[in-house]
Amino acid sequence: MRYTAIDTPAVLIDLDKAEANLAKAQAFADAAGIALRPHIKTHKLPYFARRQVELGAVGITVQKLGEAEVMAEAGLTDILLTFNIIGAAKLSRLKALHQRITISVVADSLECIEGLAMTFTDPSRPLGVFVECDTGMGRCGVQLPDDALVLARAIAGSRGLFFAGLMTYPAAGKPKLAAEWLAQAKALLERNGIAVPAITTGGTPDIWKMKDAGVATEYRPGTYIYMDRSQVVSGAARFEDCALTVLATVVSRPTPGKAIADAGSKALTSDLLGLQGHGYVVEYPDARITGLSEEHGTIDVSACPVAPAIGEVIRIVPNHCCPVTNLFDDVHLIRNDELIETLPVAARGKVR
Amino acid sequence: MRYTAIDTPAVLIDLDKAEANLAKAQAFADAAGIALRPHIKTHKLPYFARRQVELGAVGITVQKLGEAEVMAEAGLTDILLTFNIIGAAKLSRLKALHQRITISVVADSLECIEGLAMTFTDPSRPLGVFVECDTGMGRCGVQLPDDALVLARAIAGSRGLFFAGLMTYPAAGKPKLAAEWLAQAKALLERNGIAVPAITTGGTPDIWKMKDAGVATEYRPGTYIYMDRSQVVSGAARFEDCALTVLATVVSRPTPGKAIADAGSKALTSDLLGLQGHGYVVEYPDARITGLSEEHGTIDVSACPVAPAIGEVIRIVPNHCCPVTNLFDDVHLIRNDELIETLPVAARGKVR
Repeated sequence: MRYTAIDTPAVLIDLDKAEANLAKAQAFADAAGIALRPHIKTHKLPYFARRQVELGAVGITVQKLGEAEVMAEAGLTDILLTFNIIGAAKLSRLKALHQRITISVVADSLECIEGLAMTFTDPSRPLGVFVECDTGMGRCGVQLPDDALVLARAIAGSRGLFFAGLMTYPAAGKPKLAAEWLAQAKALLERNGIAVPAITTGGTPDIWKMKDAGVATEYRPGTYIYMDRSQVVSGAARFEDCALTVLATVVSRPTPGKAIADAGSKALTSDLLGLQGHGYVVEYPDARITGLSEEHGTIDVSACPVAPAIGEVIRIVPNHCCPVTNLFDDVHLIRNDELIETLPVAARGKVR
Repeated sequence: MRYTAIDTPAVLIDLDKAEANLAKAQAFADAAGIALRPHIKTHKLPYFARRQVELGAVGITVQKLGEAEVMAEAGLTDILLTFNIIGAAKLSRLKALHQRITISVVADSLECIEGLAMTFTDPSRPLGVFVECDTGMGRCGVQLPDDALVLARAIAGSRGLFFAGLMTYPAAGKPKLAAEWLAQAKALLERNGIAVPAITTGGTPDIWKMKDAGVATEYRPGTYIYMDRSQVVSGAARFEDCALTVLATVVSRPTPGKAIADAGSKALTSDLLGLQGHGYVVEYPDARITGLSEEHGTIDVSACPVAPAIGEVIRIVPNHCCPVTNLFDDVHLIRNDELIETLPVAARGKVR
């Protein structure tokens, strides 16, 4: 079946493009001598997680316990969970996962470490804990290498935990800033007798500058498998590299300059990521998606030499592909414009 | 169980507040002599759809066939689907629904009417079709009363369809503009011998100005059941009326002025609706949610006399409650801070 016969709105994944993106990143990582640990938040599919490991990834990254549980169930055995695990319910689920697979987590406070230390008490099977470092992103993470030292000591001093290394999600476009921070922290820890087994960083915007990651030993890109409009604008991809598109139908042409598609914020999300407009229309590069309500996408087609007709299907490259896959129960794998397979998004909606 | 023991992030619905919002709107509609047909996109729950009908609603509104199917399965028998139905797959599902329940749809083009007319051909059980009118919103809908006349004639001239009336989603804050448009169209149609059985409008921002709806016979509010920050800013509600909150845990305090919660755009959506910031923190009214990534909410707590600690739970009134319920597989019904019941969001993710 040709993709144009799929009911809309729907997520299409071009397999050849995804495969090329995966292979290119793995080759870059191999050339840079850095391990790849892809973040599955982008695809949320065991299918691609397994493929990433087949191609050479050392394991996967997840952001939620629910994602880790889905991936463990699907046979993934080495998972880094890059989120502070707080509270009894989550600690209990983490413990159950740790009994089945190799899982590591992060911490950026003594409170977080304390919860882990009270849950994991078996020195014969300790939990690996990375110290999360804020190297410029301004989100989670310790602010100074001195703080990293305090937390590394607390981890190393807990009999059921071991210090796994340093973790950061760097500010986009500033990989060298992150690398400097991490180099200083590494030196400080080593001067204080604490070995740093691994240093893990990430981010698709700077994926092709992996060599600037300096002391980092591991890279955790997510978006790179599909790419999206924000990555095109940032220079990390071309539109022809974008493997994920949202298939939509033009359902109204209220005025000569306007088309309404059946893809709104419930299909494309409201993520702007600093961009103007809500996506790129593959068939109509001169169109601008000027507004979204939940089920409607308003498209300015006044600059298009020919405008789409009611009933016509179009493909939209979203601003940000990761949250898009979280909105759909299934995605359609496409090769040469033919539908190959429809997959449930197994780790969709894993908010906890 | 107290709500604070629910694992986060989670959606809480305060039943007393929701009930009060429902009752108030029904009383306003009764006083205005206008029928209420609530839009279920906000709650996506058969539980509340049934309650709305119990309280006096004439039926419900949906935006998607998938929503209509869920609601029909749950026993709702009178549904208005306010979206152009285009294409064979959807027309076939609409036909199946029409055989089970009373369902009406809208159209704003001859192309849309043609698809309906080819699918519905039985004059003994015709499909009701409203003409959608753009009365200022700038989304779908015919631009001029003259265009409404053309479409009403086309509907009335199709043997398996009947002209059900005029439908609009008005621009917020401009109910009188919509009312004028609709009055002109009604007069034009009647002058041309076409009776207008119903005129349906909607929108929570102007729900308490229902009397300004003029010739409208029916009102389709959605958000009013839960209310949200955008409705508070527009003046339609107070924060204490907001029945839906997102329960979140503070997972990091990277700096004295900053708290990170485990509710990001995957819990709150990126919808701004013209506002600054991403929600209102009930326990910390001086806090500002300054940024969201998928799983992190960054909160500026520098203006708070006391700031939340790591592990503390907070409730967030989102900017826009409707897409929030689309992100969660379940919601928690609360009364007097106690968990009453956890419900699956039956119509979540019905993109098609």
